[in-house]
Amino acid sequence: MQNIYLQDYSIFLDDVWEEWNNFIQKGHYSKLVVLVDENTKTYCLPLLLKNSVHQNWQVIEIPSGEQHKTLSTCELIWAALMDADIDRKALMVNLGGGVIGDMGGFCASTYKRGIDFVQFPTTLLAQVDASIGGKLGIDFHKVKNSIGVFKNPKAVFIFTDFLQTLSARELRSGFAEIIKHSLIADTAEWERVKSISLLEKTDWMKFIYSSLLVKQRIVEFDPFEKGLRKALNFGHTVGHAVESYFLETNSPLLHGEAIAIGMIAETYLSHRQAELSTKQLQEVTSYLLQLYGGVPVPTHVYEDLLGLMAKDKKNEYQQINFSLIQPIGSVHVNKIADKQAIIESLNYYNQMVKAITD
Amino acid sequence: MQNIYLQDYSIFLDDVWEEWNNFIQKGHYSKLVVLVDENTKTYCLPLLLKNSVHQNWQVIEIPSGEQHKTLSTCELIWAALMDADIDRKALMVNLGGGVIGDMGGFCASTYKRGIDFVQFPTTLLAQVDASIGGKLGIDFHKVKNSIGVFKNPKAVFIFTDFLQTLSARELRSGFAEIIKHSLIADTAEWERVKSISLLEKTDWMKFIYSSLLVKQRIVEFDPFEKGLRKALNFGHTVGHAVESYFLETNSPLLHGEAIAIGMIAETYLSHRQAELSTKQLQEVTSYLLQLYGGVPVPTHVYEDLLGLMAKDKKNEYQQINFSLIQPIGSVHVNKIADKQAIIESLNYYNQMVKAITD
Repeated sequence: MQNIYLQDYSIFLDDVWEEWNNFIQKGHYSKLVVLVDENTKTYCLPLLLKNSVHQNWQVIEIPSGEQHKTLSTCELIWAALMDADIDRKALMVNLGGGVIGDMGGFCASTYKRGIDFVQFPTTLLAQVDASIGGKLGIDFHKVKNSIGVFKNPKAVFIFTDFLQTLSARELRSGFAEIIKHSLIADTAEWERVKSISLLEKTDWMKFIYSSLLVKQRIVEFDPFEKGLRKALNFGHTVGHAVESYFLETNSPLLHGEAIAIGMIAETYLSHRQAELSTKQLQEVTSYLLQLYGGVPVPTHVYEDLLGLMAKDKKNEYQQINFSLIQPIGSVHVNKIADKQAIIESLNYYNQMVKAITD
Repeated sequence: MQNIYLQDYSIFLDDVWEEWNNFIQKGHYSKLVVLVDENTKTYCLPLLLKNSVHQNWQVIEIPSGEQHKTLSTCELIWAALMDADIDRKALMVNLGGGVIGDMGGFCASTYKRGIDFVQFPTTLLAQVDASIGGKLGIDFHKVKNSIGVFKNPKAVFIFTDFLQTLSARELRSGFAEIIKHSLIADTAEWERVKSISLLEKTDWMKFIYSSLLVKQRIVEFDPFEKGLRKALNFGHTVGHAVESYFLETNSPLLHGEAIAIGMIAETYLSHRQAELSTKQLQEVTSYLLQLYGGVPVPTHVYEDLLGLMAKDKKNEYQQINFSLIQPIGSVHVNKIADKQAIIESLNYYNQMVKAITD
């Protein structure tokens, strides 16, 4: 598989170890600090260590899960870096999913005003989503990614063998971003994507590659999210709010599961506000529902969800901002939907869920 | 007075209001968020508001002082931004000394992954030091500026009338950076600087301007502190450690007061390690001592100070790094001094203090 070369770093795919060892030898790093959680420590770290020529490692472990993507965990990471006397010539290696990548990248970018870091994404979600874009950060006051910076890693290494350590549920969560990339920018890919039913049997590399190309095209056009890049937000205005809400319950959703709900609601908005055809609305809804099942969104939390959406970073001048598709494969940014329309979209989602579960 | 044009922003000097109003009108900001402490709120904010055409202000107040340059204060600032629904089109206006500028800039750079900010430095120290260099951050685990980012403001406005609100002690603290800039890079300026004895009667604008030119020259050559920029660290390896130590006592020192101690110790090291002449050592020592008096550094804290110095960001490969002068007006970076030499330099400082106070 080809590598992907972006403006100031590269994404190495598949057979990554030779490139990785070249990278660290050229870097002359004083130390490699690897950030892991209890899962990647067990399932991924041994592989990384075995395949690396560098010997001077420092391991920092944090608890897994979005609920730990907080300032308190950053404090643990910064303190660990300081206690180990990590200097500015060190390299931080983020070995994990989106939480590790976003938070580890943020900590590296702010420790002593910034040390080098690389991403070793171990989940499908992180491989297709977090590899491009330079978005780093943490959740704050229940708002996702509300504190952070834009900064690119020195390199990304996508080793698909790590995907074998994932549960079916995690795989499905990551697949949501692949679906999104096809819906906003690649009709042919959507045709291939929607034919997938057995995720465990899928050869992911070619889907990851196509998906990264979509994201690359959009991000290079608009690195700081001033305009076009908001296209990537499809499904995320509603999805992030739903994710934040469920995070506080006893049955939190994975990111992609929340985004799948968001994509159904926002496909409805695409139909209502941007004239997406009924046929395409049904096509997207039914594929997402059969894959993600249907967790209802309780009516009594609609107001809270609207409040969370109002706090989304991408809003300007106090309006709630959406990226909508019309037709499948093309996207329109800076679409406004009012409260009534958003509530309708959530009702639509709940009705569809009811229809398949009754 | 001329303005100073840097790579991606400008510093406006003296008669700043017209430039300021042009700036905000061009920016089309959704809101101006001004960060103040109890002092600048009383003495500087009314002037800023009176002279601004923009009407949509949000004021955030934090307590003054280096002891509040912490992550907890950042949390207050981020929460205030979030509670006021500040969006990415807002401008943050940091109205205060170094703490406000460094911490406000850091919070702006990380809120929603970065909003625009400008600096209105109100102290002499901030006007000559924090206006150039893009260094933002906070203290963490007792190590100064150990968490932060490099990011330039959109503009800096230096209004010297604000200096009239300063105490003699604060003025003297800021003057230390002017002294430093002359010692490392401008012999002729050092001759002018050392003739100053009555700080209150000084016309600061020309000294600020010369001092900024020195800093500009160095920073533009090395924006991310990879090499030459460490020149600016003269006096700061020892000075920062001394400042951190006194911060925990009942009689904390102002930044410039600690840097004055650091400059005496490091001028001694310049003599010992880099062959600065005895005459120049005496010249620097006696000027700094007569101006800053002499607070002794207790012998029993030497070990703690060495520990703090070992944690300085600019160290690499676990050695303590100094920037030394030889002769006055030129500087040498990446000089190493061992523990024994550093202790000698502190002893030298204490002996000189004893000589003038006995």
